[in-house]
Amino acid sequence: MEEQHIASAFDRDLEAMQAQIMKMGGLVEEAIRLGAKALETRDEDLALEVRDGDKAIDGLEELIDEESARLIALRAPTASDLRLVLSVMKIAGNLERIGDYAKNMAKRTSLLAQGPNISDGTAALRRMAREVELMLKDALDSYIQRDAELARDVIARDEEVDQMYNALFREFLTHMMEDPRNISACMHLHFIAKNTERMGDHVTAIAEQVVYLVTGEKPEEDRAKADITSTTEQKV
Amino acid sequence: MEEQHIASAFDRDLEAMQAQIMKMGGLVEEAIRLGAKALETRDEDLALEVRDGDKAIDGLEELIDEESARLIALRAPTASDLRLVLSVMKIAGNLERIGDYAKNMAKRTSLLAQGPNISDGTAALRRMAREVELMLKDALDSYIQRDAELARDVIARDEEVDQMYNALFREFLTHMMEDPRNISACMHLHFIAKNTERMGDHVTAIAEQVVYLVTGEKPEEDRAKADITSTTEQKV
Repeated sequence: MEEQHIASAFDRDLEAMQAQIMKMGGLVEEAIRLGAKALETRDEDLALEVRDGDKAIDGLEELIDEESARLIALRAPTASDLRLVLSVMKIAGNLERIGDYAKNMAKRTSLLAQGPNISDGTAALRRMAREVELMLKDALDSYIQRDAELARDVIARDEEVDQMYNALFREFLTHMMEDPRNISACMHLHFIAKNTERMGDHVTAIAEQVVYLVTGEKPEEDRAKADITSTTEQKV
Repeated sequence: MEEQHIASAFDRDLEAMQAQIMKMGGLVEEAIRLGAKALETRDEDLALEVRDGDKAIDGLEELIDEESARLIALRAPTASDLRLVLSVMKIAGNLERIGDYAKNMAKRTSLLAQGPNISDGTAALRRMAREVELMLKDALDSYIQRDAELARDVIARDEEVDQMYNALFREFLTHMMEDPRNISACMHLHFIAKNTERMGDHVTAIAEQVVYLVTGEKPEEDRAKADITSTTEQKV
């Protein structure tokens, strides 16, 4: 009876923490969407909103960290329950990083609003950000539903994001070589593209946590990396 | 007596984990140094060595995570001891990210070996990497010695790294505008510069953990960010 009581108290606490993760995830999804929108429409007010919103995301991570520590100290969970609590902390850490990248994207809006308009680039960036946002939504759903299949699907889709990044990298190079006045804007856009690709990596890390939680096995570490720009020769 | 016994077992375990953190830190310091050297001397064999070495770093993080979970489950540490164990995990996470950035730097060596030589750029990059490496060494020393002063010093020095990055950003822009044949190489070099600046941020996060551990207070969150390239207008 005592054990039953302890178990349900733990479950209740864990559920409360998962609700916080979902809240945090919702804020991060919104930050990605609005950050990309601000960039494309050169909306500096919206960009400022995204930047301010990051504080709430950081605050939630801190809260989740503290709650996790409190839960471990209070309930002294054993192996598999402990794994659950630690996964909550890891996922919160990944969400915080994705939020940072979204903030960074928004930060560059006012900067880009001054230079030449590389509109096909910002539209492609928004599509890439949209894909990452959908992946994040599915990764969080897979977490709540403990659905390893959905999580594996998210991991596979990261390759598309990597390919979108590769295409953008080449496009920006071309723009810069065609007209040196595009160089500064393209440097920033390239940066945002790389950050968006990194957001995808963090979403993948969340999905990998889910696979680990459900199956007890880590997904294959050396999955094919489709970002080839760091290893393939580029024409100059 | 029983409690005494438990306390020393915990201390022994914690000490073993701190030894693993120091081992991991040593490998990461070396990866930064050799990665920057490979880049400057265009030494593709050395670059390959750095890339292969990252597996050992990742392996240590996994080991530390597992040991932390085992320690929490076995010893059920209370508040302040738990904070110590969680800090070990956070620091291992930061070290793993720094190692990734060093690997990424090495990856771009073979690519840069093909293009024009921007030798003043790679020399400046090596100096920047050297500064980050020294900051990391001090951050780890401050952790082992529980020295909040030294940790605060590390946090302050991150501003210099940010300024080095700003100077490089402008230099690469100039190179690209002077000669379009430099564009591709400078895109990669800019990337490495930004990653090195991010390494500095992760070293700072380690130092902030130390301040928190020693004083119980988090260092001021909104420390002056000296990377101004994402917010300041650039001339095109």
